[in-house]
Amino acid sequence: VYIASDKIIIFSLYKKSVFPPQMKVKDQHFETIWIHPADPYVVQIIDQRYLPFRFVVEDLRTMEDVFRAIRDMHLRGAPLIGVAGALGMYLALTGWDAMAGPDDLKRIATMLKGARPTAVNLAWALDRMADALTDAGNHEEQIRLARETALNILAMERENSRLIGTYGLQLIAGMHGGHHEPVQILTHCNAGWLACIDYGTALAPVYMAHDSGIPVHVWVDETRPRNQGARLTAWELKQHGIPCTVITDNAGGYLMMRRMVDMVIVGSDRASVYGDVVNKVGTYLKALAAHDNGIPFYAALPSSTIDPVLGEGAMDTVIEERDGREVRNAEGWMNGQIGEVNLIPEDTQVSNYGFDISPARLVTAFITERGIVQANKTDILNLFPEKNLNPGV
Amino acid sequence: VYIASDKIIIFSLYKKSVFPPQMKVKDQHFETIWIHPADPYVVQIIDQRYLPFRFVVEDLRTMEDVFRAIRDMHLRGAPLIGVAGALGMYLALTGWDAMAGPDDLKRIATMLKGARPTAVNLAWALDRMADALTDAGNHEEQIRLARETALNILAMERENSRLIGTYGLQLIAGMHGGHHEPVQILTHCNAGWLACIDYGTALAPVYMAHDSGIPVHVWVDETRPRNQGARLTAWELKQHGIPCTVITDNAGGYLMMRRMVDMVIVGSDRASVYGDVVNKVGTYLKALAAHDNGIPFYAALPSSTIDPVLGEGAMDTVIEERDGREVRNAEGWMNGQIGEVNLIPEDTQVSNYGFDISPARLVTAFITERGIVQANKTDILNLFPEKNLNPGV
Repeated sequence: VYIASDKIIIFSLYKKSVFPPQMKVKDQHFETIWIHPADPYVVQIIDQRYLPFRFVVEDLRTMEDVFRAIRDMHLRGAPLIGVAGALGMYLALTGWDAMAGPDDLKRIATMLKGARPTAVNLAWALDRMADALTDAGNHEEQIRLARETALNILAMERENSRLIGTYGLQLIAGMHGGHHEPVQILTHCNAGWLACIDYGTALAPVYMAHDSGIPVHVWVDETRPRNQGARLTAWELKQHGIPCTVITDNAGGYLMMRRMVDMVIVGSDRASVYGDVVNKVGTYLKALAAHDNGIPFYAALPSSTIDPVLGEGAMDTVIEERDGREVRNAEGWMNGQIGEVNLIPEDTQVSNYGFDISPARLVTAFITERGIVQANKTDILNLFPEKNLNPGV
Repeated sequence: VYIASDKIIIFSLYKKSVFPPQMKVKDQHFETIWIHPADPYVVQIIDQRYLPFRFVVEDLRTMEDVFRAIRDMHLRGAPLIGVAGALGMYLALTGWDAMAGPDDLKRIATMLKGARPTAVNLAWALDRMADALTDAGNHEEQIRLARETALNILAMERENSRLIGTYGLQLIAGMHGGHHEPVQILTHCNAGWLACIDYGTALAPVYMAHDSGIPVHVWVDETRPRNQGARLTAWELKQHGIPCTVITDNAGGYLMMRRMVDMVIVGSDRASVYGDVVNKVGTYLKALAAHDNGIPFYAALPSSTIDPVLGEGAMDTVIEERDGREVRNAEGWMNGQIGEVNLIPEDTQVSNYGFDISPARLVTAFITERGIVQANKTDILNLFPEKNLNPGV
């Protein structure tokens, strides 16, 4: 399916409104990132900028390739970014003539962290890599260790997603209760396998439910300004054969009021031990609507997302302000290629906060790799004692 | 400024990111619709499909022209649609050789109502026209009456907006309290003068505050899928010199949580005597966020918007489901013209409800042409006793 070249268009997914049916990317066991099976010095990724219109696999050969792929969002999603950073350090070392010393490793880590400075997982993965590689005996062993450590991080992320899916599946099964009607799930942004290695966070339970024979239907918020819901989540679900409907970010509240949603599941970029959820901007509005209508609202997240330093309410989170071009413009397909249209004149003043905060009081529970936990400090610290910064208190 | 031709591009507003500064459309006393000053058989409108990129005035000469202009949304906004319908009946009669009988008038009204079947104001204005014209003595008098009645409806709408502005101004002035900081107002969709004849509903108080020397800044929800906020509201405000910032529909909740919004003012397409507000989809989410953060949430509406038949909660409102193309595509400026981009493949399943309902418990008050009234049945029926369908009860 893939060929070793710098940028391979596997097939055009979208031509004059004909979407190739049954393109089971998932059934071919595609993950988001892997080492080339025939060339250990090449890392391959799905270049997500072209989805859902084209399925493009990109070859990354150097640390600089990885840096660009992360910075320019060929890939995104907290778990995936961390793995990409780790494999970036591996590629960096393959290009060296001799072993890298502790200072060299730190320098490589610092450079790669700069690709997405606010990504917690990226920093965590690179620090773990640097630690693991310091004690290597020689150059070859260091490269082998780098490869192993990066693949261990990858395997851990895959396993976290699988466990989140397994626990979340029980919630969906409980909601279904053996009825014939599909369980109606609303999600925001993309917290699917494209944001992870496989399965996803918010979507992992959905995939598992579907594969267990529980009928599900997903309402997908388009998620302006970058439309990751419309472009990535809808594509993922469709590839797996899961019915879904794309809606504007404005519509979910009305659907909940009409009882057309049974549960909301979102991902998270950072969470507090108090149960507050930092996630893609707009999540808070859906948490409010779910609460107002008595609909359960779940955040699916690996425990690496829980930041023990965050205060109650998580208002000490620094919310990234992104480029106004994303608000002024919309990207899509025209004339056989991906292009942008100016929604409004370029000199219009805009604001573009990337995330918001859903306070714990609106969150029913976290779905984690260790199980379901109610969104409060006592329960979260019981399940994750390592997140307690003051265990004596 | 305008010339009698079928479609006149007055000037291109947007060329390679240069937005002509100080284009005071408003200062030239432009309204949204008028009878051509030199040709009484021509109605002129601002063709809003081209805003904010081009300012185009369109000549309407026949009932069919008016029908198309309403159906294809050359103009929109409840008050404006009603006036356009009335002037459409006037144009219809100018084309006749003899007086139209009661059945003819009903037929014309029915045809024009079909342009936007769910628009309450359109039906109301056309029924009022038909009633007024039935007793005309001859053809000439009927045309004169049609012209007068339509212009009376227009004048009434203009006056309603002016009064809403005057009352709403007091709320903004109270919020400002003589401080130096601008009052931060969030609005959704377009309820400005482009939706009315002049001033607007939600924006009328904002214009009056600005003109009274009270500093204001408006957060403008882009309002997917048709982006009336980004395209029309931001343009209107800019023409009048009012500072504003366009945000995605996802962002307003976070701004409110950060105390960056002092008050929310929206328009309404229909309201119940219980205080429930039917408005452009997404309004409910902002009402929830305002309530959650203790920020006042106002609906500015002429009393013609209050539908005495609606039940408590307004869930008996039929919510229009619009064409999925609006969700799949985005319209904007590219290569020197207005064009569309496919945000997602054309066979993606989408849903596109046009409106939602903000329950009275989330609404602080209505701003009406008779004053500010709290959003509950007792106060609303006290101010508008004619809306009481059971005055004895």
